[in-house]
Order: sequence, then structure tokens, then C-alpha cells
Amino acid sequence: MSRDPVNYNKGIEVLNEMVGAPGLQAIDAFQKFYPDFADFLVSFGFGEIYSRETLDYKQRELITLTALITQGAFEQMTFHLNAALNVGLTPKEIVELVIHCAAYVGFPKACSAMTHVMNVFEQRGITAI
Amino acid sequence: MSRDPVNYNKGIEVLNEMVGAPGLQAIDAFQKFYPDFADFLVSFGFGEIYSRETLDYKQRELITLTALITQGAFEQMTFHLNAALNVGLTPKEIVELVIHCAAYVGFPKACSAMTHVMNVFEQRGITAI
Amino acid sequence: MSRDPVNYNKGIEVLNEMVGAPGLQAIDAFQKFYPDFADFLVSFGFGEIYSRETLDYKQRELITLTALITQGAFEQMTFHLNAALNVGLTPKEIVELVIHCAAYVGFPKACSAMTHVMNVFEQRGITAI
Amino acid sequence: MSRDPVNYNKGIEVLNEMVGAPGLQAIDAFQKFYPDFADFLVSFGFGEIYSRETLDYKQRELITLTALITQGAFEQMTFHLNAALNVGLTPKEIVELVIHCAAYVGFPKACSAMTHVMNVFEQRGITAI
Amino acid sequence: MSRDPVNYNKGIEVLNEMVGAPGLQAIDAFQKFYPDFADFLVSFGFGEIYSRETLDYKQRELITLTALITQGAFEQMTFHLNAALNVGLTPKEIVELVIHCAAYVGFPKACSAMTHVMNVFEQRGITAI
Amino acid sequence: MSRDPVNYNKGIEVLNEMVGAPGLQAIDAFQKFYPDFADFLVSFGFGEIYSRETLDYKQRELITLTALITQGAFEQMTFHLNAALNVGLTPKEIVELVIHCAAYVGFPKACSAMTHVMNVFEQRGITAI
Repeated sequence: MSRDPVNYNKGIEVLNEMVGAPGLQAIDAFQKFYPDFADFLVSFGFGEIYSRETLDYKQRELITLTALITQGAFEQMTFHLNAALNVGLTPKEIVELVIHCAAYVGFPKACSAMTHVMNVFEQRGITAI
Repeated sequence: MSRDPVNYNKGIEVLNEMVGAPGLQAIDAFQKFYPDFADFLVSFGFGEIYSRETLDYKQRELITLTALITQGAFEQMTFHLNAALNVGLTPKEIVELVIHCAAYVGFPKACSAMTHVMNVFEQRGITAI
Repeated sequence: MSRDPVNYNKGIEVLNEMVGAPGLQAIDAFQKFYPDFADFLVSFGFGEIYSRETLDYKQRELITLTALITQGAFEQMTFHLNAALNVGLTPKEIVELVIHCAAYVGFPKACSAMTHVMNVFEQRGITAI
Repeated sequence: MSRDPVNYNKGIEVLNEMVGAPGLQAIDAFQKFYPDFADFLVSFGFGEIYSRETLDYKQRELITLTALITQGAFEQMTFHLNAALNVGLTPKEIVELVIHCAAYVGFPKACSAMTHVMNVFEQRGITAI
Repeated sequence: MSRDPVNYNKGIEVLNEMVGAPGLQAIDAFQKFYPDFADFLVSFGFGEIYSRETLDYKQRELITLTALITQGAFEQMTFHLNAALNVGLTPKEIVELVIHCAAYVGFPKACSAMTHVMNVFEQRGITAI
Repeated sequence: MSRDPVNYNKGIEVLNEMVGAPGLQAIDAFQKFYPDFADFLVSFGFGEIYSRETLDYKQRELITLTALITQGAFEQMTFHLNAALNVGLTPKEIVELVIHCAAYVGFPKACSAMTHVMNVFEQRGITAI
């Protein structure tokens, strides 16, 4: 039982909208392993932050993707690339974000990011051109 | 004389729109010191990247600000906070970006970023609430 | 009024124990600027995290200090160095943490960290030897 | 023959206590490839640093794990997670460190770290709850 | 057709000298996916930067390898290790760079880097001793 | 009395060659504060690493400067910029290193680095053009 049921439920809603059932599996694994961690992740990371006003999901995914690329935290890249597409960022917008990062984060991390983008787009049968 | 006059001029245009004359002074200092560096910065960093289609200036400033915060590259924060406001991101949108980073980059860097935001807003006599 | 009064109050308690009134001034500045940010910082960053069981304040400050040094987030270094001393880490333990970081984070960031340690110790009139 | 036999031997002792024979295999590979590198790693990284007084192995593993997570240096995560458990950090303490990092390093790197924790715990047949 | 054919061709020349046909395959993949990204990478990252005077290819690979190791951008490590060897850095020079990074970037990233070095050297049937 | 007098003395020699008396003051401050830290810094960071064969001081400063820029560890930038010039890297070589980093680390950190370069060159009354 979450220590913050309202935001936990908001978080599950956000996750459903952003990634649907496949994405909830990752959370499930954390939930079984150590519920408090899944609790924080879902209620704070998604429930509280993503459901705030002022910035919509598309803007938030621009921010999250940039944060991941800059940190080199590519393990969450696939999750958020799918989320970004699902909430309405176009393939072109995502690729252009990576190009922007080539200048503002450097070409190495942009190349790593682009490879992840290519994999996700291939899985989804979409192109950016 | 730039090695790429078309994009150099685009870059100066972009800089004028984004920060106006005060911001061009930083570029000036680089220009006097080592023209090639200013050349790359203006023609590639601003001319080529910022004038690309698909993502507008506001989206690009969301990306650049996030990249700066995540890298801890706070020396360029003031420049881009002013740019962000000038191109139409609202004070609230900027603050909410920092709050988003608290979860996706961690509270330490978000706190550093928020301090810079507070300074710039104070200089410009604006509030975020 | 906090969106999470229980954890907000826990956070204020933690902050009082860790840094006392001087430290609360930084939070105050955030509070006046954008209450939601101070709210998250106090209730999540300090209230929820620091008051969790299993790891005590001294262990948590070992973790936070290491995270700050590794990120190069030195703007929060003074705050947490004071907190570390206040919760019972000895001057020697703090210096030895920095030496450990020399090997595991590299000498440059360890040197930056040590300079901050020296400043705080000087302000408090303590030595590590 | 090490350039610093005393600390080299201390380092081998530390490694034996921390990870035992399996862990020494990684060092062995470096030793065969370029002895000086293994020499520095064993004598300085483990011999000199880990055997210093003031901080015990458990505190040092809190620091090292935090440094790895913050840097995103996950290739050494498995080694140090095993070391942490072997020197007496409890499964719960390790998981709580990762939760602490969610706030102080951000959720992305905490998620990556937690995945590594789950893998190591599974291999060792332990749980954190 | 590149937006900057002169530097694009310079970039292809540089790539041929540095990595030959195998390395051009990675660029090819980017080219098919989103030509503008390959364009920037080849014409700016390799054409403009690598063909500049003052620093030769060997010095530039010292810089690039260090940047990759420090960022933990190991996905490009293999490419640049091969490039470094091809442009004349000796195996010993490359290994000594990693040892230098052990002190200036920390042992964790140096260990990750050394593993990549070992793999590339093994593929090429060379040793550093 | 150093725990490693041979390498400590090598380190002092290296420091004298690289920065002379002014630079030794920083080490002095560490020495007074906590001798073991100065000991490690001088004997390992400078004595053991910088006096190794295969890479000369100029190559090592290319590596160290790149590591500092990439980490954003600008507090040691002035020290190493002076060292780089003293050991024979030309002003142009140093500026070109920063330009190389614009592509491989990103423009933000390159801009921060260039500002430090400009300050040191101004203090020394030299130009890069």
C-alpha cells in the first residue's frame, strides 16, 4: 500500500498514458523487489512531476530525454523514447532534439543517443525522414 | 571573415533575437581572442542548430537549459535563462523545468539551477508565481 | 500550505537537526520564490529521504557528500559539510571521504572538495588532524 | 614485481576479504595485459585507500557505490555490490543507498543502479525486504 | 547532398585515413536514417575539427579518447581506439593515457576504459607490453 | 614525512618544472591542513603519473586539460593552463584543444574553458593568434 496513494494512482495513470502495459512491467519488477522504491518512482517521478501543470507531456519528454542523453543514462532511453512518441512528439522532433544535443552535449553522446533512437524507431516500424 | 558566412550571419540574427546586444558582447570577447572559436560558436551552435526547423526556439531553450543543468555548466545559465524568457518561455515554464530536473537530475543540481533562475528573475524584476 | 504537510514537517525537523536556523534561510529563499520547489525539497529531499530507517544521518551524509563531489555540485557542499559535522561525522571522517574520492572520482574533484572542506573547517575553527 | 610491494600485498588482502577469488580474476586479466595498471589499481585503489583507518570497509563501500552510481560507472557495480555485501552492508542498507541517490543523483541513475542490485541479489539468492 | 560539401568530403577523407571502410559503416547507418545528422557528424565532427592545423591526428585522438573516458561514453571507444592506433598512437601510449586517467578521472572509469582497450587490442592481435 | 618519499620528491620536482613556486603554494595549503592528502596528490598524482615514460608532459597536459574540461572541474583549470604553457604547449595548441572539445564535449563546457584560457593568457600577456 503506497505511502502516498493519491500520487501513486496519478503515477499509474501517467504511466498508462505514456507507455501502456509493457512499460508497467519494469515498475512491476521494482515493486516486487522493494515496494518503497517503486512507490517513490511512480508517485514522485511520474505522479507528482509529470502531472503538474504548465508543461505538457511533450515538453516534459523533451526535458527527460535531454537529461538522459546528457547523463549518458541510456538504460532508460528506450522507455522514454517510446513514451515521447506515445504522447505526441513526432519522430522528427525527437531526432532534432538529438541533433541539438550534438552541439550542446557533444557528438559522442549524441551518437549513442541516435543509435537508441534508430533501434526504437525500427521496432516501431517508423522513420524520421 | 567567417569560414561559413551564411550560417555565421544566421547565427548573429539568432543571437540578436534571443539575447540582443548585451549577449553579443560575450561573443565579441571570443571573437577578439580567437576568431575561429567565435566563428564555430556563432555559425554552428546558433546559426545552424537554432535556425533548424521542426523545433522552435522555446523548445530548443528547454533542451539547452536542461543540458546546462545536467552538466552543471552554470556559467552559461544566465545567458540562456535570458534567452529563454526573450523567446517566449514563461517564468513559470522555466521554474517548472527546474522542478522536473529535481527528479530527473537530482535535487543538488536543481537547487543550483534555481538559484541562477532567482538571480536572473530578480535582475529582470519578474516573478514566477 | 504544503501538498504533503506530514513530510514537510518531518523535513523541517530534519533540517533543524542537521543545520539549524542558518541553513533554513536557504530554504526560506526558495519558499518565497516558488513555494512548490521548497515544498518538494523539504518534504521529499529531507523529510522523506533523510528520516527513513536503516541508514542513519551520518551514513546519509557520506552518501550525499560523495554524490555532490562526484557531480561537482559544489554549491551545496558548504551546507552538507556543516550538516555532516552537526550530525556527528568527525572532521577526520569527512577528510578521509575526500581522500577516498581521489581514487574513485579522480584527483581534480577531490582537490575542489578539499578546498571547500578547508573553508568550512576554518569557519568553524576546527582541524582534521 | 610491484613498484610498491607492501601496498600491493595489502591490496591483495583487501581484495580477498572484499570479493575473494572470483573478484581477483578481473585483476588477473589486467595483470596479464599491463602489469603497471593492475599494480596501481591493487596497491593504490585497494591497498592504500581501503586499508586506511577512520572509515571502515562498510563506510567505504557506501562511498564507492555512490561514486559509481553518480558517475554512471555501472561496469564496476557488480564487483562492488558483492564487496558491499561481503563486508557486512545489509541488503536493505544497499537498497536504501540507491533510494537516497534517487533524490540526490536523480531517478534515472537510481533506476539503473537498482537493476544491477536486483541482478546481484538474485544471483546470491537474497532479498532486501 | 551535404549542406557543406567541402567539409563533408574532408570528413570522409579523415574517416578513411582514421578507420577505413569498416568505420564508414557506422556513418552509413546514420546517413540512411537521417542524413542531416550524418552530415553534421562527418563535416563538423571529422571534416572541420580533425583537419584543422596545429594539433595532429595523434594529439586529437589523445583528446577524444580522454573525453570519451571522462564522459563514460564507451560506445564510441572501439571506433576511436582503432582510429588512435591507425593514426600512429602506439599501444603503449594508449594504455598510458588510461593510466593517466586513473588519477585524473578516477579508477572506475579507467577500469572500464582498460577493458575496452584490451578487447580492441585482442581483436587486432597486439599487446601493449 | 611522506609514506612514499621517492615518489613524493619526484612529485615536487615535477611540480617545480610544471608550475614553479606559485603552484607549490596550493600544495602547501593542503600539506598544512592534512598531510596525507598532499602526500597522495604530490606522490601519486604528480610523482608517479607525470614522471612515467611513453607520454611526455605536453601530451599529459593535453589529457589533463581535456579531463578537467569534460568534468567541468574548472577550479584546477588555471593551474594546469599555466603548467601546459610552462611545459611547452603553445597558446595555439591549447586553444585548439578547447575547439576540439566543442565538438566532443559540447559548446557549453568549451565556452567555460575558453573563458579560463582567456584569463590565464591575459595574466601572462600572451595571445593565441
